[in-house]
Parts: sequence; C-alpha cells; structure tokens
Amino acid sequence: MEKITQEKLQDALQNQDSFLAFYVDVEPVDLALAIENLDDDDIQKICQWLEDEPLSELIEDADDDLRLRLSSFIDDHRLLSVFNFMQKDDIVDIIGDLPTGRKKALINLMRSGDQKIIKELLKYPEESAGGIMTTSYIAIKANWTVAQSLQRIREIADKSEVIETLYVIDDTKRLIGEVDLRNMLGAQKAQRISTIMDDSVISVQPEVDQEQVARLVSRYDLTSIPVVNKRGAILGIITVDDVIDVIVEEYEEDMLQMAGVNREEDLSSTLSESIRMRLPWLMVNLLTAFLASFTVKMFQNTIEQVVALSATMTIVTGMGGNAGTQTMSILVRELAKREISLKENWKALVKELLLSVVDGAATGIVTAIIVYFMYGNFYLALIIFIAMIGNLLVSGLFGFLVPLGLKKLHADPAISSTIFVTTATDVLGFFIFLGLAKLFISHLAGM
Amino acid sequence: MEKITQEKLQDALQNQDSFLAFYVDVEPVDLALAIENLDDDDIQKICQWLEDEPLSELIEDADDDLRLRLSSFIDDHRLLSVFNFMQKDDIVDIIGDLPTGRKKALINLMRSGDQKIIKELLKYPEESAGGIMTTSYIAIKANWTVAQSLQRIREIADKSEVIETLYVIDDTKRLIGEVDLRNMLGAQKAQRISTIMDDSVISVQPEVDQEQVARLVSRYDLTSIPVVNKRGAILGIITVDDVIDVIVEEYEEDMLQMAGVNREEDLSSTLSESIRMRLPWLMVNLLTAFLASFTVKMFQNTIEQVVALSATMTIVTGMGGNAGTQTMSILVRELAKREISLKENWKALVKELLLSVVDGAATGIVTAIIVYFMYGNFYLALIIFIAMIGNLLVSGLFGFLVPLGLKKLHADPAISSTIFVTTATDVLGFFIFLGLAKLFISHLAGM
Repeated sequence: MEKITQEKLQDALQNQDSFLAFYVDVEPVDLALAIENLDDDDIQKICQWLEDEPLSELIEDADDDLRLRLSSFIDDHRLLSVFNFMQKDDIVDIIGDLPTGRKKALINLMRSGDQKIIKELLKYPEESAGGIMTTSYIAIKANWTVAQSLQRIREIADKSEVIETLYVIDDTKRLIGEVDLRNMLGAQKAQRISTIMDDSVISVQPEVDQEQVARLVSRYDLTSIPVVNKRGAILGIITVDDVIDVIVEEYEEDMLQMAGVNREEDLSSTLSESIRMRLPWLMVNLLTAFLASFTVKMFQNTIEQVVALSATMTIVTGMGGNAGTQTMSILVRELAKREISLKENWKALVKELLLSVVDGAATGIVTAIIVYFMYGNFYLALIIFIAMIGNLLVSGLFGFLVPLGLKKLHADPAISSTIFVTTATDVLGFFIFLGLAKLFISHLAGM
Repeated sequence: MEKITQEKLQDALQNQDSFLAFYVDVEPVDLALAIENLDDDDIQKICQWLEDEPLSELIEDADDDLRLRLSSFIDDHRLLSVFNFMQKDDIVDIIGDLPTGRKKALINLMRSGDQKIIKELLKYPEESAGGIMTTSYIAIKANWTVAQSLQRIREIADKSEVIETLYVIDDTKRLIGEVDLRNMLGAQKAQRISTIMDDSVISVQPEVDQEQVARLVSRYDLTSIPVVNKRGAILGIITVDDVIDVIVEEYEEDMLQMAGVNREEDLSSTLSESIRMRLPWLMVNLLTAFLASFTVKMFQNTIEQVVALSATMTIVTGMGGNAGTQTMSILVRELAKREISLKENWKALVKELLLSVVDGAATGIVTAIIVYFMYGNFYLALIIFIAMIGNLLVSGLFGFLVPLGLKKLHADPAISSTIFVTTATDVLGFFIFLGLAKLFISHLAGM
C-alpha cells in the first residue's frame, strides 16, 4: 500500500499510463481523499482514464461533495455501466444526492428489475435502517438440506455482502431464523436447515433511525442485522462496515453540535458555507450574552460603588460554565446509551449536588484566599466563596436536568444543552454574586 | 428478547429456578447492565446459580467494575472452568484487571499451553493492537488445495472468531496472503490456495495504538485485521466487534475530555470518584479565570469612570469563546482523521480569519445597535463592534492553531485545546475591549 503525496499524485496525472500504474498501488479510499482538492480538469481526466470497475470503487469511497463532482463528468450511460459494479445501497446513496432531473433520467434508463429495487430503496430516509440496508444477502429455506444450501451459497456468495450469516425465510419471504455458516460447515450434508437454525433473530424495521441500529449492533456484537417489514418479510440487511460509518458519523455530529458546528462542515468548506453554518449559532448565543449583560446592568449601582466586583464576577460565572459542561457531558453520554428517568436516578442527582458543594467549596476557598490578598477585604472573599458554591450548585442542577428535559421533549440533548446550561450559570452566577455584594455593600464600600 | 425491568429482575431473584427461566429470555449484555446496582448478596447468588457457560457470557458482557465484583465471588478453580467458554483475548482482559496475587495464582493453575498464550497476550498494553487481538483465527498454507483448506475450516470453524477471511502463512508462520471464503467456495476443489489468495494484506504490529487500528478498519471497510510481529509472523487478529468498542470508547473519550471529564466517570460513580476526576480540571480552569480577572483589574480605573463597560465586556468574551469552540472542534475532528500541516492548509486558515471578520461584523453590528439603544452612546457601540471583530479574529486564530500546535507537541488536542483557546478569547477579549475604551475614554465619560 502506497502513501499518496501531492507530488506523486501530480506526477501520476501526467498521462493515462502513469495514472493507471499509480492506481494499482493505492487504495481507492486514499485516492478519494487525495483528489478532493484537484481542479475540474484533473477530475475529468481521472473519470476518462479509469475503467468502469476502478471508477466505481473510487466513487464508492468518495465523500458526498466529490461524488457529485465525479458524476458530473460521467454521462448517464457510462454511469449506469459503472453502477454494475456497485451494491444497490451504494447506487441509491449516489443517485439520491443527484439533481432530481438527472436522478429520474438515470432510473428510467435502468432495467425494470433494478428500477423497482432502486425506487423501493429511495423511499427510505437516508439516515434510516432502510436507507443504509443492502439487498445483497443470502436467503435459504428451512426445509432445504445443508447440501442444497451450500450449493446456493456457492452460486451467489460472490454478490453477497455477508456470507457468515444466512437468513432463513418461509414461502412468503418472512424471516424465521438465521444460520451461522460455521454450523453449516460442521453439519451433515443431509441435515435440514430447520434443525440447525437459530429462531431468535434481532431485526429492525426500515423506519428505525440509523443511530438505533448502530446501538443494537454494537450492544449485541452483531456482524449484520436484517431489516424486516411489519409483516416480518425480509427487505435487506445492514452490514457492520456501514454501521461503523454510522457510529463515526453520529459521534462526530454529537461532538460538533455540542460546540455549535454543523457536521457537514470541514476544512474544505467554502467561506459562505461556513458563514451559513456557524453564524446562526453565534446569533443564538448573542441572546444569551445579552441576558447575562442585563443581569450585570441591574447591579450597575453596586459595581459603581465597588469596582473590584467587575474583575471578580467573571470568575464565578466562568467556573460555573466549566462545571456545568462537565455534568452535562456525562448526562449527554449516558442518554446516548440508555433511557434515564429522574425517578430512578434521583440519587445520582443528589450526588451531583453534593459534588457541586464540594467542588464549589474547594475552588471557592482558593479563590477567596487569592481575592483576599488582592483586595484586602474579608467580606469580598466571603462573598465570592459563597457565590462559587451557589453557582456550582446551579451548574450541577442545570447540567443534570437540562439534557433530561430536552430528551423528554424529543429534542437532541447534544445540540442545545450547552446554551441553556451556560445561560443559567452566567445569569444566575452574576445574580448570586452581585446580589450578595449588594446585601453586604456597607462592608465592601471604600475598598 | 425480553426487556429487563427492575421489577422483573427482583422477581427472578426469588430463587434459582425463576432466575434460570428468566435468563433464557434475556440477552447477557442486557442482564449485565441491569444487575450493576444489585448488592453483593444478589451478585453472589447469580454466580452460584448460573452454570459455567452462561456465567462466562455474563462476565464477558459486564463492564470492568462488574467483572471484578463477579469474579470476587467465584473461586479460582471455578473461574478456570468458566474461562473454558471464553476467547483468550477476553480471558486476558479479565485477569488483567484482577489483583496481582490472584492473577498469578490463576495463571499457575492453567495448562501450560494456555499459560504461554495468556502470558504472551498479557505483555501488550490493554489499548494496543496486541491487547485487543484474539488468537482464534484460521491459518492455511499456500500450497494446500481448496479441499484441504475447507476440511481444515470445518474442523476449527467452531472455535474461530472470523471465518470469512482465512490467513495464508508460510512454514515459519509468516503471513503471506489472505483468502476470502467466498472465493474458496466458488473455486475448484483441487485448486491451490496460492492461485486464489490476495497477497496485499493490511496488517498492524502489536504495539500499534488501538485508535490507529480502528482508523484502518473503518477507512478500508475491513471485517478483521491481522496482527504480525516485526518478522511478519502472524500473532493474532482483531475482529470488527472489538473495533466498534474501540471507536465508541475513543469518541467518548474525546467528547468528554473536551469538557474536562474523565471517560471512567458515569452516573454510577461515587462522590469521591467524581471529585477526584473533576476537581483537577476545575482548578486548572481557575487559573484561566484569574488571568482574565487580572486583565479586567488592569482597567479598573477605566471601568470606574464608565461602569457600563462592566455589563458589556462579557458579551465580547462570551462570543469569542463560542466562536473559538466552533473553530477548535472542526480542527480536532479533522486531526482525528488525518495529518494536517499548516503549510498545506494556510488557505483554510485565511478562510477561517475571513470568517471571523464576517461573523464578528455580523454579531458586532447587532450588539452595537442594542448597546446604542441601551446606553445612548455612539462610541461605546463603535468600540464593542470593533472589539467583537477583534476577539473573533483571536478565536479563529487560536481555535485553528492551538489544536495543530498540541498535536505537533504530541499532546492530545481533544484534551487541552479548550483551555488554551478560552484563555486567549477571555484575556485578549477583555484587553481589546477595555483597551479601546481606555483610548476613547473622553467620549465615553459621563454616560
């Protein structure tokens, strides 16, 4: 396996022969990453130079943007012959992203058998079980012998994505069991499939969200999972490589969304794409910032009397934000794995609040000591100590309850928890600290 | 598949018969999750009631804490017979976590063949390729016929974790190729393996980090990856189910570490565990908070003259923090996928800075208008507009460069980027805004 550098790639692009020689030594997925930044001329050359099969590999391994670019340089008839080397689920992914006109034209050019399957698959949302399933699985019948089944496997193994698990169906295509190829290889030739099949199969319906599918596969260590309709008839299977893609996708989404970034964005996004994807989140946060600002403004008189408050108040809110993010992250992670009800987990909430008191007291005492040495006022030190505990309690409470509440409202806790939690720690943090300062103002004045 | 509720579990725990009847209907992994909070008496009962094989399933699916608890109720001889139903890599995981004394005692009780393998596997760090590999793979020779190989597969398929891929070795156990079972099923019985094998195999050495292994498997859509030593001899294979666990683990780690949380912590952690894991991060952040506080203190005179600054300055730093987190998240994500050099990506940095100007101007103009209506001072509005653009430039610059720099220093960008970026946006944000205010103080005074 050759590592691709931009120099090697440029050398290879000199002419068709050098490129084809280069192609043999690289993995298509590496090439797909390396050509992302080439200009259209080079992309067009690659499409012309490669034969249908290698071109199909390259398209399969390209990301959405590159797929669109590649397919724009391939005419409809060529694209159809490239499709011959692809699994149906990949074809659907590709034409699903094409402009509607071209999508329709391509489907109309297909053989009627293919047309039916593709149309069927296109019905399912891209991120559902139906959207990621493949129709290339091996189905056998319960009354077949092992020998008959092995013969069938030999015939279609080449076109099947999974051969380790065979799906047993009845005459109406209802899924009634599965057989591990291991057991079949070990069994007698004349044995019936019904005697070696496992009839408790974990399956999903096509509407199920891909995240749920990934959770099942990861939890039960499956290598594939069948998709069945309401009647129990098998529609397709989802393979573990697609599940890995889903897991990576969903985690990235969660991680980026917690930071207010869209999953679609990466280093190669254009300026206008980045603006469109990031500015709205900043605008929402501006609202939060003003809420905090209004709170401070309420105490303008107090700050006027003791200007040292302006330099110390941000410590309280900053620490509240950090502690709140910690609590929230733990909750978001647990919610991604399982249902959490407050009723069954009130002890965890109590622990979280105790933790807030301890962490608040620990950071509060350090802060109080430093503040005392900076400003020489015991009351200011005492106030910041109390405010720190108070705001960490706010952070623990909101960090715990906000994700739970969003989940209950069927919102994604990963997306919007941050904003609610930091609004709470900012607004209430300022309020607690400056409110206490106002109460004790006679002890603070003249600092 | 039965859903497990605490009521059903309590019912089942009445006596052995009811528990065994209950066990048949549940998945071991679900049971393992459900019994985490049971007290020791119940855990002990379960260990006594279950036979070796179901007990081995339960232990395999338990998390580290529960494994330790379960094995504390199983004596050495029983544990060894439970191990008979497990893969070697799982046994190693379990005894690796036991107290040293017990670990040694168990190994000494093993048959010498097993002893050797277990000792060998224990040498590798838990999070390396060697630490997650299994020794249950199928090896065949290049000069064997297809018929011979199929016979071999039949014999050992039952004990092998992967049968879809067969590994071809020479007489010194060096890995020289692999065969897809599909091709073997389709080939003639008398054909030699050398004629159908693929001799470009992607493999890893045992010291390689598990994250790197996961990246290879996910990138090249593998279902297993062989582990070879320096000489090229095969030591074991890593299967896709373990890779999924690694991916989930590593992503969770990144996500939690960005928020200053240890991966080990969850809702069931005790108060003292949580304190130990979260307080250090808060203390580090306290340092940051004081840096920002000192910056504000430098401008105490300015704020004394125009107290409105204290309510508006946090808008500038808050927005800088949000924008910086966005940029940083994108970089951390990309760095997890590939190497990024500044030299090849300076255009992306320029775009990021342009984006900062646009986003800064957009949020800045909104802020300026609101501030103008709140305080009626044109210069204050102008200053906050300029400061917003300035601090978003800081956020873009640091959000981009900090993760790159940390990676270059071989530190994990996911862990410590946040603290450096927010320190920059806090300190420089206050500095820019209050510094401008100081310059224009004559236009602001008397607000």
